[in-house]
Amino acid sequence: MGKLDQTLKKIIARDESAVKTVQARLDSLTKPQGSLGKLEELAKTIGGIKRKSNFSLSRKAIFTFASDHGVTAERISAFPSEVTKQMVYNFLNGGAGINVLARHAGAEVVIIDIGVASDIEPHPDLMIKKVNYGTKNMAKEPAMSRQEAIKSIEIGIEIFETKLKDGLDIAGIGEMGIGNTTASSAITSCVTKKSAKAVTGRGTGLSNPEFSHKIKVIEHSLRLHKPDSEDALDILSKIGGFEIGGMAGIILAGAAHRIPVMLDGFISGAAALIACTLAPLAKDYLIASHCSVEQGHAIILRHLGLTPLLQLDLRLGEGTGAALGITIADASVKILTEMATFKSAQVSEKSI
Amino acid sequence: MGKLDQTLKKIIARDESAVKTVQARLDSLTKPQGSLGKLEELAKTIGGIKRKSNFSLSRKAIFTFASDHGVTAERISAFPSEVTKQMVYNFLNGGAGINVLARHAGAEVVIIDIGVASDIEPHPDLMIKKVNYGTKNMAKEPAMSRQEAIKSIEIGIEIFETKLKDGLDIAGIGEMGIGNTTASSAITSCVTKKSAKAVTGRGTGLSNPEFSHKIKVIEHSLRLHKPDSEDALDILSKIGGFEIGGMAGIILAGAAHRIPVMLDGFISGAAALIACTLAPLAKDYLIASHCSVEQGHAIILRHLGLTPLLQLDLRLGEGTGAALGITIADASVKILTEMATFKSAQVSEKSI
Repeated sequence: MGKLDQTLKKIIARDESAVKTVQARLDSLTKPQGSLGKLEELAKTIGGIKRKSNFSLSRKAIFTFASDHGVTAERISAFPSEVTKQMVYNFLNGGAGINVLARHAGAEVVIIDIGVASDIEPHPDLMIKKVNYGTKNMAKEPAMSRQEAIKSIEIGIEIFETKLKDGLDIAGIGEMGIGNTTASSAITSCVTKKSAKAVTGRGTGLSNPEFSHKIKVIEHSLRLHKPDSEDALDILSKIGGFEIGGMAGIILAGAAHRIPVMLDGFISGAAALIACTLAPLAKDYLIASHCSVEQGHAIILRHLGLTPLLQLDLRLGEGTGAALGITIADASVKILTEMATFKSAQVSEKSI
Repeated sequence: MGKLDQTLKKIIARDESAVKTVQARLDSLTKPQGSLGKLEELAKTIGGIKRKSNFSLSRKAIFTFASDHGVTAERISAFPSEVTKQMVYNFLNGGAGINVLARHAGAEVVIIDIGVASDIEPHPDLMIKKVNYGTKNMAKEPAMSRQEAIKSIEIGIEIFETKLKDGLDIAGIGEMGIGNTTASSAITSCVTKKSAKAVTGRGTGLSNPEFSHKIKVIEHSLRLHKPDSEDALDILSKIGGFEIGGMAGIILAGAAHRIPVMLDGFISGAAALIACTLAPLAKDYLIASHCSVEQGHAIILRHLGLTPLLQLDLRLGEGTGAALGITIADASVKILTEMATFKSAQVSEKSI
């Protein structure tokens, strides 16, 4: 049995009894019951994931996968393909949005080249795990083989497990890949059965005619390949991306090892669709950090039944929204574990 | 001229040229323009407040004012009045929600007894600045004298200026005062001209009959005193609270000294209504951290033209929402000051 199948077999539902124990603890703290709203809900979710009521989120990592997309040949992005590689160097130099926001969250950024179209110079902070040099152009042929789809997911799982050995309490996911909103819209249309138009946005900033063209490319690719919406590997291979597979691997590994996975924006949402098609219970381990400006993202979150923590009109990706979401998750867990109880603080409870 | 008038005279509008400089800097950073949404808007707001484009928010303080309300005699709160004092001890011991979330935000909590109904034992972290031992019952008589209203605001100004001498880059406000949602609803109804019913919520948790009774008490108090909606000191003295005056003082001092002030929930919003009735330009210095479950809060934010950063269904007060808002403000400023530019990182700009 391969790594992927082994991982899928380990995924079970969240522990509802731990959710109840966390609820009881929250209700004993010096605040009106429920008065910290979504922070309390989040602490309960994380308790259910970790199957306990006392824990910390001190060790945090955001896994940012970079990869290229053959479909950029169709001119569906406002930025040239070489930006993927240039941005990886920016990540390694600490100057990108994800570096800034991960530092703010106290999270490590794990940078993975899972399929950038050209070679990146080795760097101590870069994991080189290329499945291939970019995907094929999905408007002409499948983006990757089924074997490559499995490999991309298994790379995510393996990287997660390596990090877990050093200690990991919460994971975030993110990506860099010029052209990947096109792949994500195609995946979202396939899995949620919404039209390409309904799930496609302007990515990094397209004009009206460019935007119409992008929708046509997605419609054409879906007609050409007819991916099977029940078969995640068929979807990922025909219209996916290596970074999307890598993020799906992190989600599945998080679910298998009972570690919460903080989603980022639209592309991470497409990865969640792939992961949850493979293992519906993986949804229990996901936290939605925010809802992106990319219109397909709200559709994904509704499809998965997830409520985003933040609405900050973000559309950068890289894991930036996940980093902010992790700061909120951290706050929620500190509330659970650091606040005094009515009893310990000798504060009177409700009188009427 | 008194402290209050001196402060009001110093308040001028935000600097729109600094907003433009911040915008230009944001547009040079390695991300699609505008892709960090509200984080970018926030960095611009703070630049306009500080009248410069390069700054940090390293020194943060949340000013939490505690005070009692005579109107609790009307049984309008689910918790007994002595909880105000008990919670101050909890603040001093570091066990309350605000302590946890301020530590998370890297902010100091400044705790002020501005009118708790009984004496609190001296403590190195407690500022004792009592205007009086709680307000009078506004359902029977004015909550305080006009002199006390001025004094409560001036205490806020003085405490702010003391802290500013040690260094202060951003301020948050918060409060503890059993009964203070009743005073805040009365203020909100008076200033926004909405009915008491429209601006009143369940506070720390009232049942239906208790809730109806609370609305009646507010309606009665407004009819009894007929506060002049153009005269903030009339409003504060007749239906206010000392902590509301203290927070209004922080807002006015922040505006006078060009320091952003992060609002908390509904009661801090009532303080903002008082401050902005005294000095409409003070609004330029306010950031709305979140929108509370207390229904009057959304009405206040609309009245002031403020958009909340977070929607987390909070209703605790103390400054907890402000603390979370400060973590977001901090993130926005780090984006502005720590990210690489397209030029410095040698990343290609938009191609199509």
